Amino acid sequence: MIFDSPAVERLIEAFRRLPGVGKRSAERLTMHVLTAPPEEAQALSEALADARTRIRTCSTCCNLTETDPCRQCTDPRRDHTTLCVVERPSGAMIIEKGGAYSGLYHVLHGVLNPLEGIGPSELRMDRLMKRLDCGGIREVIIATNATAEGEATALYLSRQIGKLGIRVTRIAHGVPMGGGLEFADDATVSRAIQGRTPL
Amino acid sequence: MIFDSPAVERLIEAFRRLPGVGKRSAERLTMHVLTAPPEEAQALSEALADARTRIRTCSTCCNLTETDPCRQCTDPRRDHTTLCVVERPSGAMIIEKGGAYSGLYHVLHGVLNPLEGIGPSELRMDRLMKRLDCGGIREVIIATNATAEGEATALYLSRQIGKLGIRVTRIAHGVPMGGGLEFADDATVSRAIQGRTPL
Repeated sequence: MIFDSPAVERLIEAFRRLPGVGKRSAERLTMHVLTAPPEEAQALSEALADARTRIRTCSTCCNLTETDPCRQCTDPRRDHTTLCVVERPSGAMIIEKGGAYSGLYHVLHGVLNPLEGIGPSELRMDRLMKRLDCGGIREVIIATNATAEGEATALYLSRQIGKLGIRVTRIAHGVPMGGGLEFADDATVSRAIQGRTPL
Repeated sequence: MIFDSPAVERLIEAFRRLPGVGKRSAERLTMHVLTAPPEEAQALSEALADARTRIRTCSTCCNLTETDPCRQCTDPRRDHTTLCVVERPSGAMIIEKGGAYSGLYHVLHGVLNPLEGIGPSELRMDRLMKRLDCGGIREVIIATNATAEGEATALYLSRQIGKLGIRVTRIAHGVPMGGGLEFADDATVSRAIQGRTPL
C-alpha cells in the first residue's frame, strides 16, 4: 500500500478489473484521476453509474439499448429480411461501424462451450429461433468469431436454421484489407485460399 | 452514435479522457463495463467518487494522502534528514516501490515551464523552501524527470537550496538495469558515460 490509503487501493483494484489494464496501468490511471481536475473523475463516475442504469438488453435482438425494443429493431429504413448473428454487443457495434450492413442483429451473449457448460440453452438461441419462426427473415449471416467455439457455434446454428429453410451464410475470413501476406498467420492464409472468389 | 444512447456516448467520452485510452479502447472498455456483472461498474464508479473525496494533498510534502499530515511525513522510522523532490505524486510512488529510499518526499506538482507561464510561484517551491528553512534536512535529492523542463527545474532548485548550505544531489541517469546498450538512445548513452562511477 503505497499511499497508505484504502480508497486509492480500491480504485487501483477497480481499474485493474478492466480488460487490458494491468497493475502498472491501473496505478497510472489512478494517479491521473487523482491529480486531474475533480470534474473529470466525477464525470467518469457518474457516466458509469448512469450507463449501467439506463442500458438494458433489447427483448427482440438482445443487443444493448436504452429503449426496448431498440432503435435498430424498429427502424423502418433497415432491411428486416436479413439477420446478423454476433457473439457480443461489441460485434454488432463493429459491423455497424463497417457501414456495409443495414439488416438486423441478434446477439448471443456468448458461444457454445461444452467444457465450460455453455450449451444452446445458456445462450440467447431460443429467442433467435422464435424470432426466425415468426417469419420474414430470408437470410441469417453468422458472424461469430473465427475461434474453435465460434466455428462450432456457427455450424450448430447453420444446422438448426437450415431446417427452417432459411439461407445461412458465414462472414468471409481471409487476409485483412491493407495487410500483406507476410503479416497473416498460416490459418488465415489457408482460409483465404479456400475462400477465394472469382475476379 | 452506434447504440443511439447518449449514456453510452458519455461513458465512451469519459473513458477517452484517461491517459493512453483512444477511441477504440474507450469503446472496448465501455462494452466491457456494460456486459460485465453490474457490481463491477458500480465498484469502479464508487471507488472513483470515494477516492476523489478522501484524497487531498499533504500540507507538508504536497503528496496525495487521506490524512494530513501524511503517514510518510509522520513516520518515525523514516529518515527525516533526507528529502526527495519529485514532479508528481506518481514519482514518489515509483521511488517508494523501488525500495531503496526511506527518506521524506516533496511533490512539486509540475516543473518550471516559462513558455506555459509556470514559474517558481506556480509550483510548491515556496513550501519546499519554508520546509528547508525550518532545519533538519541535510540532503535534498532532486528526482525531476530527465526532460528539458525537469533539468531546468533541477538546476534552479540546486541553486536556491545550495544557498541554504544544504547538500543537493540528482538521481543517476544512464542505461536502465537489464537493458543493453543496443536499446539505449544516444542521450542516455552519453549521460551514462559522463556519469560513470569507479568500480
